[in-house]
Amino acid sequence: MASRAPEAALIDLAHDLPPGDVQHAAYQLYAAAPYLQAGGVVLAVVDPGVGGGRRALAVRGQKLWYVAPDNGLLSLVFELDPPTLAWELDPEAYSQGPISATFHGRDVFAPAAALLAAGFPASGLGEEVDPASLVRSGPGISFSTAGEVLTFDRFGNAITNLKPQEVPEAVHVVGRHLPFVRTFSDVPPGEALAYLGSAGLVEIAVNGGSIQEDLRLLPGAAVSLQLAEEEPPSLVSD
Amino acid sequence: MASRAPEAALIDLAHDLPPGDVQHAAYQLYAAAPYLQAGGVVLAVVDPGVGGGRRALAVRGQKLWYVAPDNGLLSLVFELDPPTLAWELDPEAYSQGPISATFHGRDVFAPAAALLAAGFPASGLGEEVDPASLVRSGPGISFSTAGEVLTFDRFGNAITNLKPQEVPEAVHVVGRHLPFVRTFSDVPPGEALAYLGSAGLVEIAVNGGSIQEDLRLLPGAAVSLQLAEEEPPSLVSD
Amino acid sequence: MASRAPEAALIDLAHDLPPGDVQHAAYQLYAAAPYLQAGGVVLAVVDPGVGGGRRALAVRGQKLWYVAPDNGLLSLVFELDPPTLAWELDPEAYSQGPISATFHGRDVFAPAAALLAAGFPASGLGEEVDPASLVRSGPGISFSTAGEVLTFDRFGNAITNLKPQEVPEAVHVVGRHLPFVRTFSDVPPGEALAYLGSAGLVEIAVNGGSIQEDLRLLPGAAVSLQLAEEEPPSLVSD
Repeated sequence: MASRAPEAALIDLAHDLPPGDVQHAAYQLYAAAPYLQAGGVVLAVVDPGVGGGRRALAVRGQKLWYVAPDNGLLSLVFELDPPTLAWELDPEAYSQGPISATFHGRDVFAPAAALLAAGFPASGLGEEVDPASLVRSGPGISFSTAGEVLTFDRFGNAITNLKPQEVPEAVHVVGRHLPFVRTFSDVPPGEALAYLGSAGLVEIAVNGGSIQEDLRLLPGAAVSLQLAEEEPPSLVSD
Repeated sequence: MASRAPEAALIDLAHDLPPGDVQHAAYQLYAAAPYLQAGGVVLAVVDPGVGGGRRALAVRGQKLWYVAPDNGLLSLVFELDPPTLAWELDPEAYSQGPISATFHGRDVFAPAAALLAAGFPASGLGEEVDPASLVRSGPGISFSTAGEVLTFDRFGNAITNLKPQEVPEAVHVVGRHLPFVRTFSDVPPGEALAYLGSAGLVEIAVNGGSIQEDLRLLPGAAVSLQLAEEEPPSLVSD
Repeated sequence: MASRAPEAALIDLAHDLPPGDVQHAAYQLYAAAPYLQAGGVVLAVVDPGVGGGRRALAVRGQKLWYVAPDNGLLSLVFELDPPTLAWELDPEAYSQGPISATFHGRDVFAPAAALLAAGFPASGLGEEVDPASLVRSGPGISFSTAGEVLTFDRFGNAITNLKPQEVPEAVHVVGRHLPFVRTFSDVPPGEALAYLGSAGLVEIAVNGGSIQEDLRLLPGAAVSLQLAEEEPPSLVSD
């Protein structure tokens, strides 16, 4: 990329994501996008289907450009920054070296991102495709009171897909009833809590611990919000 | 930061520190500070009390600027670079976006560091506070023969707070008596040793292994130096 | 390095390699070298013998410069980019600070790499030595059908030293017989496969899993290619 776009400023958003975990990376993009400068090019590669049938894409969002496999990695960020135009990458059209079957991050995606960052037109990277055809996968953002665990951060805090419209009183997960507070130190060390995370989504955690380990949570675990006017369900243990 | 201080050179000192381990990060700052250019701005965020009562700070040291939570993270580096002026960050005064309760690295500290790096005056970041009021925590550097384990590096070598005034003969830790040598290869593979580490502090290690695992050491374990003129204590095994 | 070579573009090739694993790092250099710009300076430090007798080197390859310990770390990359000139680093000649016995990455190698990148002549870094005297260790690249496992990537895929001259039909390893295919998705999830990796070497893997864990492979495990014209050996289980 330094060869093809020597003027571009490269920002390493993350390099150590869990291998093959498309949904985790989709969340990271969703969380980062509001802080990136409009017109920037986002290179995102978590690509367990590398070399198989999935398409490789360049996408023009309303705010940012994206270069990524068409495997759902962009599903969440598209809720903030909808795709307006898309191209299926044809590396034969722009790559200068051999194209391996297993490392498209290096051979397909990074060269395309560098060319876009250097001002090369997307039409030179491949055929235009319908943005409506792009793969959407995983849970979307939920604006209701029912949702699920999207993924975990490196502290073991669980990030849900719930974007609340009002401040809830509590959060229910796997039979537990967690107080909704502002931050970790609002509960004693070792206690579980729920709070509004830094991406605007509800998160659940243990102060000074890992709720992922303590409750043996997995992505997809059902989570629900208890709003102020509701009675707490009578059968929930604590 | 790239938006607020586009001219600043960003150097990533460390991004993978043990979660919530303030003392480990305090050591890393102590070790790095002598190699940073005077006048630079150090952004340091290990912040288990995020969103609680701890203050957020900008500090003018004699050599460097620091932007960090007031939780002891700067305790060790202040022994090399004492604080001369300090300000309590008021993100309402300078932040341009919403301020989450759990990610002050992004919403409070990074914007302040970027503004300082861009030449913005610290007085615009918040109220001045007394440098003597800043939190100091954890063991300081010991210039005597008695000290303790501060933390571990990623190889499992233990770093102590002992800064010897002369070359010791041996080091005592948890009933063990380790020869003080120049470097790893001065003892056979698998053997324990003590040596002067790269930050000028005594370290203890196993050549090709992990003393952290082998001796099940924890931070705070007592460590003492045996100087040349002393007799070795008679009851120490090994 | 930012002080000594402020104009140089720094590219972080890898910062999280397995501690002390010279052969793993040797492979990473071999894989990266074709993508680096000619004339660039490669700083490579995996240095379990730090402070002992091994030499510290600056090497002029045909394409790139290298600054590294003389412990075999450059063995594989020299097969692509042979050394033409070499110097034994004498940090007393160019370093501006104290030289620790255990952190030559900071005190010996990085300053030398920065000086080379800034245009300082290699002759000012130490005495010239014979390139034929440089340590070569570990298996070289094999152009035949018999080889071994070099190392593993972070997904648990095994990289061998086999650079095939024709497309094989299958790969044998520890009594297993793996189909040679183009990419992961050419076998069902959970199945083992062999393929041409992104560095041009044969790799073996499990689609969606870790062959390192599944077969408890270690570096050095024997691997052989079965070419198209051969009969498969009759006693190989699958």
